[in-house]
Amino acid sequence: MYKYGLSVKFRSTENNAQKLSSILLKASELVSRAKGCQLYLVSIDSEDPDTVWSTEVWDSKEDHDNSLSVIGVKELISQAMPLFAAPPEKVKEIKILGGYGINP
Amino acid sequence: MYKYGLSVKFRSTENNAQKLSSILLKASELVSRAKGCQLYLVSIDSEDPDTVWSTEVWDSKEDHDNSLSVIGVKELISQAMPLFAAPPEKVKEIKILGGYGINP
Repeated sequence: MYKYGLSVKFRSTENNAQKLSSILLKASELVSRAKGCQLYLVSIDSEDPDTVWSTEVWDSKEDHDNSLSVIGVKELISQAMPLFAAPPEKVKEIKILGGYGINP
Repeated sequence: MYKYGLSVKFRSTENNAQKLSSILLKASELVSRAKGCQLYLVSIDSEDPDTVWSTEVWDSKEDHDNSLSVIGVKELISQAMPLFAAPPEKVKEIKILGGYGINP
């Protein structure tokens, strides 16, 4: 069974990337305790300062989907929504074969 | 100073994704010992079976660039080249603000 990897692109309204990323950093704290969470990084795009990325690894897609019901996550999502210039976009869904840096 | 994140897309010739990913998995072993390597995952795209991804986190872009001179990496790259349907593509370069799953 492959681990599930995911990259989500969040386009923020102008100059709100820092605000949006701090909300996502809070979310990463919450979901880090959820079953199957191996990695949840929050980043700013190197070329576009209004684009924030999540880079995620989960034991399964199901674990990822279940994490949306972790207490506090829905509140954070509603805080973030006014800062979106476009809906979040799943840019990359991957089946992780292996490598270095997360638990096998 | 932000950690440097990188996603590289490798398009393999038909039915060679498995062969290509095993070469990249060997590369991940070599570069995992390089200075500043925090994460080097090898994955297959969930929708396109001929697309292989690396998902990387380095302490700096410089550390990443230096890792290309790790002994054995150039040989692996030359093994992989005949399997490319297109040149590798840096799809996402990111400045990592934080989150869960790698050393702060």
